[in-house]
Amino acid sequence: MKNKFGFILVKPQLGENIGAVARSMKNFGFHKLNIISPKFTFPNHKTKVTSVGAFDIVKNTKVFNNLDQAIEEFDILISLSARKRDINKKYIKITDLYNIIKKRKGLRFGFIFGPEASGLTNKDISYSNFILQIPTSKKFKSLNLSHSVTIICYELFKILNKKLNNKKKEKFKISSKLKITSLARFLIKLLDKKNFFLPEEKRQSMILNINNLLYRLEPNDKELRVLASIIGSLNKNKH
Amino acid sequence: MKNKFGFILVKPQLGENIGAVARSMKNFGFHKLNIISPKFTFPNHKTKVTSVGAFDIVKNTKVFNNLDQAIEEFDILISLSARKRDINKKYIKITDLYNIIKKRKGLRFGFIFGPEASGLTNKDISYSNFILQIPTSKKFKSLNLSHSVTIICYELFKILNKKLNNKKKEKFKISSKLKITSLARFLIKLLDKKNFFLPEEKRQSMILNINNLLYRLEPNDKELRVLASIIGSLNKNKH
Repeated sequence: MKNKFGFILVKPQLGENIGAVARSMKNFGFHKLNIISPKFTFPNHKTKVTSVGAFDIVKNTKVFNNLDQAIEEFDILISLSARKRDINKKYIKITDLYNIIKKRKGLRFGFIFGPEASGLTNKDISYSNFILQIPTSKKFKSLNLSHSVTIICYELFKILNKKLNNKKKEKFKISSKLKITSLARFLIKLLDKKNFFLPEEKRQSMILNINNLLYRLEPNDKELRVLASIIGSLNKNKH
Repeated sequence: MKNKFGFILVKPQLGENIGAVARSMKNFGFHKLNIISPKFTFPNHKTKVTSVGAFDIVKNTKVFNNLDQAIEEFDILISLSARKRDINKKYIKITDLYNIIKKRKGLRFGFIFGPEASGLTNKDISYSNFILQIPTSKKFKSLNLSHSVTIICYELFKILNKKLNNKKKEKFKISSKLKITSLARFLIKLLDKKNFFLPEEKRQSMILNINNLLYRLEPNDKELRVLASIIGSLNKNKH
């Protein structure tokens, strides 16, 4: 089975964690790693030391300045979060992963992890389709970054080696995040012209709402075109 | 359920790994850690740094000179090993753990991990009841010590909490279909005014597309209001 899983680390703080993440990914057969604005010169000496035999993954890691660029190559995004948010995304359990993956054959999954100390922001999470919380003791939930990645890699490895039920090869075609991002930008531009985001202080929360809605939708290309034409049509002046 | 699981590290080489192990143990509700002849002054500064909020476990860790002393308090021992040995012990899979534990209610389980570079010796393994190999990619089997412990703690936690898992279904607040229908009608009315549905024969399929998108979205009431205001705003004439 072709490997279609990647890992996205938002603003990691410690070089040694990235090395440990790379090692774990390789332990379970994964290799695609994107990182956003690391808080250190990447890769540093500690990254190299902790990656041990997985420095090839570190070398091929792509570094971005923004999350929306880093997610372009994925179809389905799953954010990891240790706490509940007041955000309308589907919370899934780790035991749901098998079915989610099985139903979406051939799609490219990205798993998004936040900075060590603070975790993902609500804006980061707004890009995702699902939120996943690794089950832990209620008394001490804060997992080390590389431990979180390890658990996800390990679970994915188990799922991929289960011989995914080949019952029905229902191909599930959905638009890439790149296309969704373009549509979101198009919509935001039009709304800006209509002064939708005034007063300025509501801008961020409105964009968050728009992202939440669009990125959750899992539209296919045809539906995206429909959406674009609806937006365009509404935007036209009456005569 | 009383916690009857402990972790035994034979000759660990790196202080930071013990801190990371302690953190992971606490993440999953475990606290008993025994170590044999660490190759550094235990605990060192790095142990403290990586243990983060789990330094209590480090402080209560018992240090021994011999494995046979460190295992005295356990009933069943499971050795972790990444390679097959020519040794007559029962090899178990991680999926066997559940049954092994269930059949041995009330017993004290110890999990034995070897030094980072070399793993357990055959002599170390001779003390154990079972040998367990964490499933990994065949190409790169060598797991980081704290990653191995993390996976075992995580699996044990899942086993011990199996009943809890099925208990509660997440409450998910979404808008009634009635409200979604109102929004769909509002949108269709506006689009009609813009002649969006011409030529007439594409009307039905376009409405189908709009319904598909809106009804799949599972929005909450706040998001529906955002959508309505986006639609209203796009629809406004420019001045």
